[in-house]
Amino acid sequence: MPKLQTPCDMIFFGALGDLTQRKLLPALYQLERAELLGDGTRIICLARNTDHASAMIQTRENLLKYIHQSELTEPVLERLTHRIQFMSLTFDQPAAYQGLADLLDSKPEHERVFYYATPASIYGQISANLHDAGCLNDACRVVLEKPIGNSLASSHQVNADVGRYFGESQIYRIDHYLGKETVQNLIALRFANNLFGTQWNQNHISHVEITVAEKVGIEGRWGYFDQAGQMRDMVQNHLLQLLCLVAMDPPADLSADSIRDEKVKVLKALKPITPELMGSHVVRGQYTSGSIDGKAVPGYLDEPDANTASSTETFVAIRAEVGNWRWAGVPFYLRTGKRLPEKLSQITIHFRQQPHYIFDPEQRQLANNKLIIKLQPDEGIALQILTKDQGLDKGMQLRKAPLQLSFSQAFGIERVPDAYERLLLEVMQGNQYLFVRRDEIEHAWKWCDQLLNQWQEMNEAPLPYDAGTWGPEAIDRLLATDGRVWHEHQ
Amino acid sequence: MPKLQTPCDMIFFGALGDLTQRKLLPALYQLERAELLGDGTRIICLARNTDHASAMIQTRENLLKYIHQSELTEPVLERLTHRIQFMSLTFDQPAAYQGLADLLDSKPEHERVFYYATPASIYGQISANLHDAGCLNDACRVVLEKPIGNSLASSHQVNADVGRYFGESQIYRIDHYLGKETVQNLIALRFANNLFGTQWNQNHISHVEITVAEKVGIEGRWGYFDQAGQMRDMVQNHLLQLLCLVAMDPPADLSADSIRDEKVKVLKALKPITPELMGSHVVRGQYTSGSIDGKAVPGYLDEPDANTASSTETFVAIRAEVGNWRWAGVPFYLRTGKRLPEKLSQITIHFRQQPHYIFDPEQRQLANNKLIIKLQPDEGIALQILTKDQGLDKGMQLRKAPLQLSFSQAFGIERVPDAYERLLLEVMQGNQYLFVRRDEIEHAWKWCDQLLNQWQEMNEAPLPYDAGTWGPEAIDRLLATDGRVWHEHQ
Repeated sequence: MPKLQTPCDMIFFGALGDLTQRKLLPALYQLERAELLGDGTRIICLARNTDHASAMIQTRENLLKYIHQSELTEPVLERLTHRIQFMSLTFDQPAAYQGLADLLDSKPEHERVFYYATPASIYGQISANLHDAGCLNDACRVVLEKPIGNSLASSHQVNADVGRYFGESQIYRIDHYLGKETVQNLIALRFANNLFGTQWNQNHISHVEITVAEKVGIEGRWGYFDQAGQMRDMVQNHLLQLLCLVAMDPPADLSADSIRDEKVKVLKALKPITPELMGSHVVRGQYTSGSIDGKAVPGYLDEPDANTASSTETFVAIRAEVGNWRWAGVPFYLRTGKRLPEKLSQITIHFRQQPHYIFDPEQRQLANNKLIIKLQPDEGIALQILTKDQGLDKGMQLRKAPLQLSFSQAFGIERVPDAYERLLLEVMQGNQYLFVRRDEIEHAWKWCDQLLNQWQEMNEAPLPYDAGTWGPEAIDRLLATDGRVWHEHQ
Repeated sequence: MPKLQTPCDMIFFGALGDLTQRKLLPALYQLERAELLGDGTRIICLARNTDHASAMIQTRENLLKYIHQSELTEPVLERLTHRIQFMSLTFDQPAAYQGLADLLDSKPEHERVFYYATPASIYGQISANLHDAGCLNDACRVVLEKPIGNSLASSHQVNADVGRYFGESQIYRIDHYLGKETVQNLIALRFANNLFGTQWNQNHISHVEITVAEKVGIEGRWGYFDQAGQMRDMVQNHLLQLLCLVAMDPPADLSADSIRDEKVKVLKALKPITPELMGSHVVRGQYTSGSIDGKAVPGYLDEPDANTASSTETFVAIRAEVGNWRWAGVPFYLRTGKRLPEKLSQITIHFRQQPHYIFDPEQRQLANNKLIIKLQPDEGIALQILTKDQGLDKGMQLRKAPLQLSFSQAFGIERVPDAYERLLLEVMQGNQYLFVRRDEIEHAWKWCDQLLNQWQEMNEAPLPYDAGTWGPEAIDRLLATDGRVWHEHQ
């Protein structure tokens, strides 16, 4: 992939915020280091009540903090900081945008990418002000950070507000999971490997597990999280995106809309969790005190700033089904929670057992073939097969054996790029396929809203689970009714 | 697998010969070491004009020579040699068998296993003499070393001669390839893994390569080899056995006859190579001088003892087809030769390409999925898949990646048992599934004879190939007409 041909102006709103400082600017550092930024590309950082000098001191400190020591070199840092220009801008003061407009107009040939790293509630206002100041043209792009609303209605509102000033082909909605190499690799695995491609349906796959487990708790954002909950914070975006990539039909090509058309089809085919299914298909939990790595940690209601009356969920497990020809009868067990025993993002595809079993009956319980796609902590894939156990004292005994591919090991790569590096690069190149289209996000909300609304009506407390466990005991029942156990128990 | 419950008398004919000394007794040493020999088990070694003391000196020397230093311990060696008893016996003197009969009768409760490590031409005579001396009963077993004849007619004769004294359930015909762990593992791979099991047919597999490449030349047995040639020496047994294990339908169970019934079905379904196909489907070669590992080596006709007029083949490649529902239209490319660049026994299953290709057109030539089953030099399997190439500068570029399983590495096993260890153990336990049934061997000869006869009628010289190359150039055309190349060229 060559250096960008056209120089670019990247304009960050919320440039002193956590996301920009901790993720976005370090990602740009890596692009700088890999010589992937176009000559002349400018990084325009907007924040309230700031001046360039003091903001740059803070930014430089953060770069030193968030970039790994071994990757830091002064010349690269120098090249990057040279591109950065801080401007003070108060989002709701239209007059302030004139300075930005003048700056942008000084390089009219630059591509313009606006990155909204602010709460979604002000995306509309920023867009309007940019428009009124004459900052926008048909070619410029806008990046919207999640969460985009907290319901179908509110996300619809945000999308409509931004949509007044930007066409859908200009809008890049972030779900940083889509920037992970292994997530993109799902597309290669499925559609470049006929061995998997021909098996990717209900004839050959019995069920799918999608797990996004966090070890951390609330990390000082109790107030924010308590408004959202795990369903809005993780399921509506990350888990449903992963489900889409696993379940989608093969696209006719790799264009953004071909892929996203297929993803939308999956979301539309997701069977609603009706009131009768709530008891058997959904588990909602909240962690109590427990221990992680042998260290005592408080429960959700004992976290700093906690509102003791909260019944917000920190854990969700759902037995989802995609009601279409390909996936009829194949459960997708989604599971995500905080304060679980390990940090783990993983998709496990369980293939069906052979129709006729001819080996030692006592070994029948040995697991079937599984394709394990690990996104975190180490990206890699493993195919679990059964082989003959080795050794003279073994007859035709079977044994599980993983065929492993660790990307960092296999390809001798020193580092796997962070998701934001990939995503920023794709925005600058104008590739939308790793970004979420409006109808995707709205169909995802539609499915989640229906579940969230039932929880609200039922008004039940979430099931407690000890921090450091895999969630409420009820999650085992979720699979047990299908005669199954979670991957890690096999 | 526990120690044998019943003690056994193993009786070796040709006990000072190369096979017994180099392979069989060292294999028994390993069984001794693994404590798999029954208490009281005796090893009775028969050879012409020998006495116990001097034969034991030679045997002990050979054990020290052929067993790896790190596996040699005096107590194990002591236990083994204690079991060994040499007797002088001239095969064609019936009277000499009386001493053997007396020895066997001294332990009537022992199981009896006769191992014929002699030329097949005397199997009948030995059997008759054993019978006449009263050494045989309905429970005793006989192991026949290959080659059993050099044509359908001659193998039929040997089988008939032995069959007068032993029922088919008592006869264990050796093909030592069947004792290799990886060959047995083919059964586990195919029938314990639905991922492969459901793909194992012409819908999903485009072609199969079976390669048995030798680096060595004639190794001082020119006279013997020149009578046989590579077709009789390697194809009729090893390559066709591997083909059977790859191609057979799933057996209803793991019993010897269920498996062998399926193998016979494959041999019967092998399409004859008719005269019209000889030019395009078969390559017959003979090595000329060349170099192996940078060292000059002589041609076949310049080997010591060579008859310069010989047109015996040292290389065969055949495009075989199994004419049944499962394999219609799927070529099995068999290839075996001496003085090739490496010692390699390998089965490569090529899966079909995906029906619709959506990645970079320039990468279309990247190989399809392959399952590579390596028997020599290291036993292991690898599944070649395509993944997304990693790294920021790569977009959706593909890359070949092997999912590897090396048995010795994966299972932390210090050594993979030699084939003869497994086979001797199975004989003592009375398991026939790793041995070749009479109808198998005869159907294999039938198919090979038809080819051998055509060669004889055509009376053409084999194609020359330089030692150290992969055979005559014509072998590339064998695949090129199907639009393919050999695995190692991909």
